[in-house]
Order: sequence, then C-alpha cells, then structure tokens
Amino acid sequence: MAGNTFGKIFRITTWGESHGTAVGVIIDGCPANLELDIEFVQKELNKRRPGQNDLSSPRKELDQVEVLSGIFEGKTTGSPICLLVYNKDVDSSKYEKIKNLLRPGHADFTYFIKYQNRDWRGGGRASGRETIGRVIAGAIAKQILEKIGIKIFAYTKELGGIQIEKIDLNLIDKNPVKCPDELVAKKMENLIRDIKKQGDSIGGIIEIIASGVPAGLGEPIFDKLSADIAKALMSIGSVKGVEIGSGFQAAKMKGSEHNDEFILEKGNIRLKTNFSGGILGGISTGEEIVVRIAVKPISSISKKQNTINIKSMKPEEISVEGRHDVTSVIRLIPVAEAMIALVLIDHFLRNKLAKIDNILI
Amino acid sequence: MAGNTFGKIFRITTWGESHGTAVGVIIDGCPANLELDIEFVQKELNKRRPGQNDLSSPRKELDQVEVLSGIFEGKTTGSPICLLVYNKDVDSSKYEKIKNLLRPGHADFTYFIKYQNRDWRGGGRASGRETIGRVIAGAIAKQILEKIGIKIFAYTKELGGIQIEKIDLNLIDKNPVKCPDELVAKKMENLIRDIKKQGDSIGGIIEIIASGVPAGLGEPIFDKLSADIAKALMSIGSVKGVEIGSGFQAAKMKGSEHNDEFILEKGNIRLKTNFSGGILGGISTGEEIVVRIAVKPISSISKKQNTINIKSMKPEEISVEGRHDVTSVIRLIPVAEAMIALVLIDHFLRNKLAKIDNILI
Amino acid sequence: MAGNTFGKIFRITTWGESHGTAVGVIIDGCPANLELDIEFVQKELNKRRPGQNDLSSPRKELDQVEVLSGIFEGKTTGSPICLLVYNKDVDSSKYEKIKNLLRPGHADFTYFIKYQNRDWRGGGRASGRETIGRVIAGAIAKQILEKIGIKIFAYTKELGGIQIEKIDLNLIDKNPVKCPDELVAKKMENLIRDIKKQGDSIGGIIEIIASGVPAGLGEPIFDKLSADIAKALMSIGSVKGVEIGSGFQAAKMKGSEHNDEFILEKGNIRLKTNFSGGILGGISTGEEIVVRIAVKPISSISKKQNTINIKSMKPEEISVEGRHDVTSVIRLIPVAEAMIALVLIDHFLRNKLAKIDNILI
Amino acid sequence: MAGNTFGKIFRITTWGESHGTAVGVIIDGCPANLELDIEFVQKELNKRRPGQNDLSSPRKELDQVEVLSGIFEGKTTGSPICLLVYNKDVDSSKYEKIKNLLRPGHADFTYFIKYQNRDWRGGGRASGRETIGRVIAGAIAKQILEKIGIKIFAYTKELGGIQIEKIDLNLIDKNPVKCPDELVAKKMENLIRDIKKQGDSIGGIIEIIASGVPAGLGEPIFDKLSADIAKALMSIGSVKGVEIGSGFQAAKMKGSEHNDEFILEKGNIRLKTNFSGGILGGISTGEEIVVRIAVKPISSISKKQNTINIKSMKPEEISVEGRHDVTSVIRLIPVAEAMIALVLIDHFLRNKLAKIDNILI
Repeated sequence: MAGNTFGKIFRITTWGESHGTAVGVIIDGCPANLELDIEFVQKELNKRRPGQNDLSSPRKELDQVEVLSGIFEGKTTGSPICLLVYNKDVDSSKYEKIKNLLRPGHADFTYFIKYQNRDWRGGGRASGRETIGRVIAGAIAKQILEKIGIKIFAYTKELGGIQIEKIDLNLIDKNPVKCPDELVAKKMENLIRDIKKQGDSIGGIIEIIASGVPAGLGEPIFDKLSADIAKALMSIGSVKGVEIGSGFQAAKMKGSEHNDEFILEKGNIRLKTNFSGGILGGISTGEEIVVRIAVKPISSISKKQNTINIKSMKPEEISVEGRHDVTSVIRLIPVAEAMIALVLIDHFLRNKLAKIDNILI
Repeated sequence: MAGNTFGKIFRITTWGESHGTAVGVIIDGCPANLELDIEFVQKELNKRRPGQNDLSSPRKELDQVEVLSGIFEGKTTGSPICLLVYNKDVDSSKYEKIKNLLRPGHADFTYFIKYQNRDWRGGGRASGRETIGRVIAGAIAKQILEKIGIKIFAYTKELGGIQIEKIDLNLIDKNPVKCPDELVAKKMENLIRDIKKQGDSIGGIIEIIASGVPAGLGEPIFDKLSADIAKALMSIGSVKGVEIGSGFQAAKMKGSEHNDEFILEKGNIRLKTNFSGGILGGISTGEEIVVRIAVKPISSISKKQNTINIKSMKPEEISVEGRHDVTSVIRLIPVAEAMIALVLIDHFLRNKLAKIDNILI
Repeated sequence: MAGNTFGKIFRITTWGESHGTAVGVIIDGCPANLELDIEFVQKELNKRRPGQNDLSSPRKELDQVEVLSGIFEGKTTGSPICLLVYNKDVDSSKYEKIKNLLRPGHADFTYFIKYQNRDWRGGGRASGRETIGRVIAGAIAKQILEKIGIKIFAYTKELGGIQIEKIDLNLIDKNPVKCPDELVAKKMENLIRDIKKQGDSIGGIIEIIASGVPAGLGEPIFDKLSADIAKALMSIGSVKGVEIGSGFQAAKMKGSEHNDEFILEKGNIRLKTNFSGGILGGISTGEEIVVRIAVKPISSISKKQNTINIKSMKPEEISVEGRHDVTSVIRLIPVAEAMIALVLIDHFLRNKLAKIDNILI
Repeated sequence: MAGNTFGKIFRITTWGESHGTAVGVIIDGCPANLELDIEFVQKELNKRRPGQNDLSSPRKELDQVEVLSGIFEGKTTGSPICLLVYNKDVDSSKYEKIKNLLRPGHADFTYFIKYQNRDWRGGGRASGRETIGRVIAGAIAKQILEKIGIKIFAYTKELGGIQIEKIDLNLIDKNPVKCPDELVAKKMENLIRDIKKQGDSIGGIIEIIASGVPAGLGEPIFDKLSADIAKALMSIGSVKGVEIGSGFQAAKMKGSEHNDEFILEKGNIRLKTNFSGGILGGISTGEEIVVRIAVKPISSISKKQNTINIKSMKPEEISVEGRHDVTSVIRLIPVAEAMIALVLIDHFLRNKLAKIDNILI
C-alpha cells in the first residue's frame, strides 16, 4: 500500500520522477471558488529552483507550473486540481555511468531492495524534484491560510555548525542563505564556498514559524497537530529530526520552568511563555507555532566514497560528479513552509467539524 | 474530522477517558489465526502501571485487560478485536476543586477551546491512561513482529540532564529508571527523589531501537518509515522532539562523515556506519532502527503556578496535588515501544503488496 | 486490510460476534456538545429486537445499550464514543451439532475460506447481531439529522411477492410487518404464518425515504451520494439489489419521460418529477431521496438441504433448527434507516467543506 | 471533503474536465515490476470512444493515452502512475448558448448548488469524459487480474425494453450494441435508429460477469465485495440500480429456492446454483460474479423540455443540440468492466493480508 498522498481533507498526491516527463501534484479537497493567484504559485516554486546564485547549483531548471484541471475562469471549481512542471532539458547521461553504483546516503539501495527495480536517472522518484508538487500545493494552501490570518515563514537557524545569534525576519530574503542574521549569513556563505572546494557538503537546522494560527487546531489522539507536523517534515528527504517549541531542550528542564503559565491579555487567555511551541495536548494554543528540523548534509559529494556495484556485487569507489548544491538547507526552506501550510490548512478544515454549533450554521 | 485511529492496515482506534467506565482499543486488520498470548499483553500493560516502586506514583491501578471480541479459541479470527481495561476505584474528587482552573502544561485549555466543553476528571481523554489502548495493541503487534524476527526495546538515555555513559541492555529491567547504565541509574534515582521533595518534575530522553527489521519497509513519498515513526512518537503526550539516527547532530556533520558507506558482509550489502539510523529515503535499510524522543517534564507539579479560572475569568494560583510521578519518561518507555511496534507491523504488511512477484504467490 | 469502518468524517467501527461477550460500535467524529438522547437510541435498538410479536422469532434478546466513553454530563465531548450491548444468556449448544456443516445461503463457507477458521457460534461476526452497532450509531446520527430537518423512514414495500398498493405512513408502526397499506399488511402476516409452517422463508423489498435533505450533498466522482448509499445498503447481509428513484425501471424509459424538468416553486428551483430519486450527478437535488433494496429470503430454514461437512469433506443433509424469523425484511428496516442516516450525516459534514465561503465563516 | 479517489490499496484518483486541457488518472499502489502493455490500455480506451459506428455519436475523439510517470523501461516502478488524454479540438461554442440553462437529467443544477460555480463547457467534471481515467486504470488492473486468472466481460442485456433471449459471448464484439444475442442485437440497432429520429434517448441493462475470481475476496463488515461493487457501479453517471446474482428477483423467492446448496466437485466445495451471484456474506465464493446495472436514458435529447434559466431565474425551453448518443449503455460497458476490475484488484490485494500464514511467507 503506497503512500503518495498527504492530508485528509485537503489531500495532495504528488507524482513524477526527476528525469521523467513531468512532476506534479493533484489536490483533491481544495474548497471551490478560491481565486487562485497562479503567479504566487510560480514565485513560491522559484524559491526552490537551483541556480539562483553562485552558492547553489548552476543547473537551470525553468520549472514553469501549468494547470491541467480544476480551475475555471481563475477560480477553483471544487474538482481535483492537477498542476505540473514538465521536466525540460533532461540529461541522464552523467547518471548512466554510475547506474550500478549505490550512492551512499541516497535512497538508491532501499528503493532497489523494496521495488526490485532501479530508476537510476537522477534519483527517480526519490529526487528532490518531487518536492515541486509539495511547493505548488503549499502555495495554494498558503493563499487560503492568508485569508484566515495565518502566516508561515522559515529560515536557516544553523548551517554547518554556525548558529544565528539574532533574528531580523526582514533579512531572510536578502541573503542567499535565507538567514535572519546579517553577520552570520556572511559566515555561512563563506563556509559554503569552502566546503564546495573540498568537494564535501554540510547540513543545518531550519526553523519554521506559523503565526496567526487560531487555538483549537489538531485532532486527538493520533492526529495531533504536533504529530502531523512531525510526519509532514520528516517526510522531506534529508530531515533527521523534528522538534517543537522547547524540543530536545525540554529534556533538561523542570516542570516549573517548562510549564507555560496562563495569563489574561485584553480579556483573552494567553500563554506567558511559549515552551510548548504553540501546541498543548496536540492542539494549537493560539500562540506562535515554532518548529525546527535537522537537515543532514547533502549525500551527493564529489569526494570518493566506498560502495557496492549491484551488478558485479563487488566493492567500488564512487565520486558523485555534477553540479550539486553544498547544502539542501536553503532549498528545503520553501518545502518546509509548504508542508506546514499543508498541515495547517488540513487541520483548519478538520476543526470546522469539531463542534455541533459549527456544523448547524 | 477526528483522529483516534492509527495505522492503515493494522488499524487501531483507542477510546475512553481517565475517569470514564473504561479505556480500550479496537484493532481492525490483525491477520487471522494468530495465537494470542494474552498474558504477554497483560505483562506489557503492567510496565506502564504506576505504583511499581517508590519512585513512581503510589496509585494502584490494577489495569486488567479484557477481551470483548475478535478472539475465538485463543486465536484471532480476522474480525475486529476489542480489548479494554475497566477504570476501577475512580475518584474524581481531588479534580473537582480545580475543575475551573487551567493546569499549566496540560491540555485543559486547548481541549476547552476546541470542543467548548471540559471533562475535568483527571484529564479526561487527554490523560495518560489513554495510552493503555496503545500498549495493548502494541503488545499484539509485537507478537507478530517476533515471528518475523523484529525486536524492539527502549530505555532512558537521559533524565533531568543526566545522560547514560554506557549501554548494557540486560540492565534495563533491573532498575526502576529503565536505564542501561548501572551507575547512572543510581544518580537518576537520587535525582527523582530530590525533585519530588521540591514538588517539581523533570524530563528526559528515551532511545528506542528496533533490530531485525528487514530492508524495504516504508512507503514513499509521504508515508516514509521515518515520517510515520515521527508521527507515532510525537502523538504521545509530553513528547517535544523526535530524531532518527544522527538526528540533530546531522546538522553539524559533513557529507563525507555522515554518508554511510556500503560494504559487503557475507555476500550481503550492509552499511558500514548507521548515521541514517536504519532508514534511507524513508525505507528501512536492514540495519538497526535508532530513534530518540525528548520528553518534557510532567506538567502536574505541586509547586504553585499562575493560571486562569475559566469560570470567573480571573487569574488564580494553582497547585496540582495528588500522587503524581516526577517524570513520565519511565512510564512512556512501553508506550514508545508500542508505537514503534504499531508502525513496524503496519509497514511490514504494507510492504507485502509492493511488488508484483509477492502478490502473485 | 479489513473493512469494519464506515464513513469518512462521522466514522463508525462495529465490532463483536453473535455469541461473544458483547457487540458494539465506536463512533469517531461525532461533533462535540450534542445532547444525547440515549433513550431514543434504546428505542431504535428495540425495533430490530426479535420476539416483538408472534410473527418474529421468539428469542428474547434484551439488548440494553451501554455507554463506555465519549459522553460527559449528557453531551458528546468530541472524543470517540464507545457503545455496546452485552450478549446475555448466550446458548451456543444448538450450533454445536452443526458446527462442521456449511449452512446454505450463509457466510459459513466464505468466512472459513477467507480466514481459515470458523466461529460456528450463531454466525459469529456474520450474524445479524452485528447490526446492533449500526443501529446504535444510526440513532445518534438521526439526532443530528433531525436538527437539520432531515427525516428518514422505511417500510415493507413487497414481501414474498405481495406488493403494497397504497402508502399511509402512519400505518407503518401499527402492524407487525411495517407495511404502509393496511389490507396488504394482513395478507403479508398470513403469508408469514403459512411459510413458517412450511419451514421455509421469504424475501421482500424495503423502500427507504429521506425527506428534508438539502441540495448539494454528495462528493463527485466516486463518493457520490448514490454510490455511498448503494455501498451502505449492500453492506447489509441479505441485500441483493439497490435502486434509486426510477431504478431498474429507468432501463425501459425514454429520456423525454425520465428527465425531471426544472420548475420554479415560490422562487426556488424544484424538480417537477422525481425519477432521479433525489440525486442528480451523485449530488442531492433537495427532493426526497427514494431508495429500494431487495432482501433475499432468510437462509436459516428448517427444510432439509444438501451441504458439505467440512470435517469429513462428505455431503450431508442439514436442517437449521431453532427459532428463526421467516423473513429478515421487517428487522432490517431499522438497519436500512440507520445506514441511510450514517451516509447522510457523513455527507452533510463533508459538504460543509466544499466552498471557500463556508470555511471562512 | 472531496471524493475523487477510489480503492484502498490500488488507489486511483481521476481528474480533468470535458473541455479542460486533459483528463487523466493517478494510480497509487500498483505493484512494482508489472510489465505494462500500453497498447492494451489504448484498446480498452478505444472501446468507450464515440464515433465508432453509425449508431453512436459522430464526434471524433482521438483519446490517445500518454504516460507522465511511474513507468520505467516498460515496467511499473512502484511510484504513482500518471496517465492522461489531452482534450483535442475542444469546441465549447455550442454549450455557450445554453450556459445559463439547467439541462434536465444532467448534473448542472446540483453542481451549481454544491459549488456555487458553473463549468458550462460540456458538463465539465460531470462529463462522461471523466470515465477515461477509470477505463485507463481498469485496463491496468485487468493486466494484473489476467495473471491471476480473472476475466471480466460485460454486455447489453436489455436496451429500450428489448431483452436478450440467449447468450453467446463470442458475439459481444461483433455487433455495435455489444449484445450476445444476434437477432436481438438487430432489433436493438433498429430501435436506436428510430429513437434517434425522435430526438429522444433510451436506457437499458448491462450485465457484468467476472470469472476465475478466487473464493475469499471481500472484507466484512462494510467493505464487502458486494458493497464495494455496488458503490463502484453506482458511481458511474446514469446508473440507477445495481443487483447481484438473483438481485431484485430474490424478493420473490423462498429460502428453499434461493439458498445455493453446497456440493463436492473434484474434491472442491462448489455451489450447485448461483443465486448468490458469486458472493456470500460479502465474500466471493469462487463461482462467477454476476452483476447487473440499470442505465437511465441519456439526458441530452433534442426534444424540447422545460427548464430554468439560472441568470434570469425564469422558465425557458431547452433543446440540447449536438451529436449525442441515443443511449449510454454501449459506451458504459467498458466503464462498468473497468470499475469491476478496480474493485477486484483492490480486494485481491487486501485479501493477501487476511491470514497470518500469508504474511509470514
């Protein structure tokens, strides 16, 4: 039983391989009559495009989004929305020579074992290009969330061991490492250039914040907002850890420190602190949702590594050549945002049905 | 749209409130003809029971599992299995006096906002007693997994900031803190006694390991094994973070360090290191699955905290009295194991349908 | 992958066997704060109880509904509702002597083949007692539907070949055959007595009508209201056919006859005729929903039949003794109503999310 | 919550509108390594194409299937398969003049009410062209079913009131009305020509037979094979009734007539008769599955009908011009076959997980 669908109400199914005809997404369950800003979708998509600056891979992927169904006269109709990007100028030749070598850190081995076949062309389904469908769907989710007052933003919190020291959200889009700290951004850029020369790669930590999320989202006991966020983010390739609010730091705190006290603010119940990261008992508190993910270093490195040739079943050395990024942190930022948007829209819709008063309107 | 069901093939639905008539679970999708060892189920259940030693809450919950359906002549029939534990000697009186106070760190506030009602009796649905259903179902899952050769064990890796220094799995069940390091276990026990006197609580880190997991489990793109593990564990109350393999440490590593090289061992492809934690591209590699969760300190503390009275809508102080544990780490160990067992059995069954050769047998 | 759950938002899972400890249902997704009339649930349950008059089986099943979870202070909390009926005075002895004989028309053979086991006690899971869970859940669904203005009623339209000639809904509950035609009811009663003497059984046709259903319910393309109704009703044991509106008669009509013309009535668009049975394109029109089901004669007959002994694997004769009904038509009426109620509440909730305007309220 | 997905394991999601860019389908859950005969898919698709003979609509729809993902080197990879047909030479002009008129019998009214928008171009999503996705997916399902030994065929059993008198399956593809009775086929053809002159339309009955279905398919209690077949077929536009085996005739039979006795045939348990239509207790018996559907007359007729103009909200007459078929019976035959194929493959896969012995292989 395959698993290419995400969400219960706002359901997306992504499809497509890196070097196939196209990669895309079907959205089933987007409410009707949403005026769709397709340019915004394209802009979101552009954020994950490589070749945007000298720090990222010089590949030129045009990645033009096209609509095949579900939109009529600029609005969603309530029918499934099929959107895609055709894979242009696909060149699989550089992969051909390593088609029998398992690239360390990649999904080559596990896909081969699971399916007993091997789409060696650029990672096939396991390629980062699959996230195009997520970003497209996330960009549509964001357009609904905006109407509700929910904003999502993410940034590089740590890269190759270098951590930010302060946060100025205005800076995120002003440097190529999506870093909210100007000085640290420079250090990160320099590190990327260094690592590139070494033929190596680095990981980092992304922090994602959702503000304006109303209290009440999340469905006990298993579909807690926190649980679905963890799944959504851990489903992104390269993510090795997810934490919410205090996260792993909670392990070292006392209850008297960690418990967010309740206070009144303009007649509303608020939380004095936000160690819970906007979620208590799996349900949003109305405070900012704060999530962090650990991103492993990119697996494709030009440095030589030992591996196995699955044809000869003999050890062999591999050097993954080509124009690879040094880190996936930067390009995963829009993907992480998209996944959070998809979780929030789904839970916003689910929560609409929680109380009898709501449904009798 | 509620969310009390977990799993796609081996589906469990838990139900019941802390101070209601019973708490239980329905399992739909357990294969027929499994000889069920109900004593094993009871033993697993006993592990999460309070009052087992002087470190944990002295409450006496007998927690006797009973079977209502789905078992005939000692075997599963293929029909839904309903199992439950009746809530005996329930005393809600101590909760009555704080029924209008939001306990900091608890789900009181968010459930109240979400559902516009309040089951104030011991946490209601959000109580830790809900995990009884999970542990029962997990104990059945474990019986199938054992036939496949999969073993799951978990232990306290860190408690109140004290970390283990070595691992001897034989020790886990020999100390009340489920710690694989004898000396550190003593320190943890002492810390618990100290914190108890302070009327405070502590958190910690649990490590869960699954060995014998065949390569190939996990369903791209969204139902990756890692993603479903993250969801399963984050759905447990008090868990603030999940990491797999290298986890957050991955953020500081280089690709040349992090990539697990492929080697041959007795003709089989193996991974030289296991930074991936047994999962690559969301699919199991055949190596040990290694997961850690961060557990926040227990929210119920006798120390005074500020909160709001939802009836008067005025600030008030609260001291959560009663016989609470100092940490939930110990009692969450069998719960964490159960959730991993549920993920693995579900994915084992799902993977059975991945290849045409398998299904034509 | 088992299938004991029905519905997407208002989800029910039934469990339990005829001669097990209990039969019951979990409802997950019932909106919070519904004041539950448990006496109404019991009354609905009583309708399917045997032994109500001399025409039906003289077995005395008390069938007292009990609540295990999800209700607090008389209201639904939003948590899963577990309701059950304990099986009292269960006597499996009469089944013991035919435990190796496949009863013709029953599910004995197919369950045995599918699961390779045999719960021979009164049909086990395939027993009509399983419908207790459906009727309980349906009775809760009806309480919400009533608030929306939806009413569901069903009656015997044909029994053993005898058809009704007129319809007076007030009569349905005034005769033991649930027939809206007084004279025909008498004939049906006489026929039942005749057939009883013959040791045989008869089938019939039930018509179910839902009035007050708002236009717009049903989810293209696969979860059409008509499709889900068909599934719901065909999932009831003994049902061999389902038709909506014109049904099989449509096959003989011309488009100019069958098309329901649109007219204006007090400024509202209405359908002049209702051959569509209240559903067009899989979506409710606002007119009455009209459905019929064909019920086969009860399989348990005392007349001798040929069958196979699965132990000896030899032919043998069987006579199913005991106090069986002559027809299941009468006792399936509340079950059919319950299934329609479950489809309608689920689609009512689903439709709440169809339009952006609705969800931004 | 939308409903464009069918199946649990072999899941298809259709998308696309009649006059949009394309119509297509995503299949998620097709086992890996199936050698795909894409020409067979095209041939199946051709069966539902109009303009095949003088009896059907003279529209020329080329309907060339294209693969966008999920196939590599001629085999399924286990990843989602996206297949589509681009809508060529789409001309919406004839629909433009009736864009404000509700066509009687069509889904215009209900889609408009449900979604508050109107894709007036040729039925939009409610068009028969949506079935292209179903036929494509069904053609892939059939390729797996064939390996198991399951064959599905369907034919016209009744058209405009004319019933077949005998069945010669070899004749089905030898006449334009897909009728297994040569003489009756001629009468049907003549009737179609007559009705065409009248500007009217007719309905009929399709019988679908699946042979070679192993015993054991179907999942109690709700996902019975019969229930899922009913849903699958009732989800096809124009279908007003579904019956299995004896169907509505069962209502007139006695238990002693209807019960299929068990007999031994070459050591195997078989059913002497097949009134159950191959399904007992919702599970396949191993005998032929026999299903019939009632198809209403096509709604698009050139005869004048009364309707409402939704812009002026005034009554108006409508004559649906264009090159419409006289009956949808013929073109629905491949669609009905496809839906049965989809149900059978899904249940075949589901049944693989029913027994512990199967899963421990």
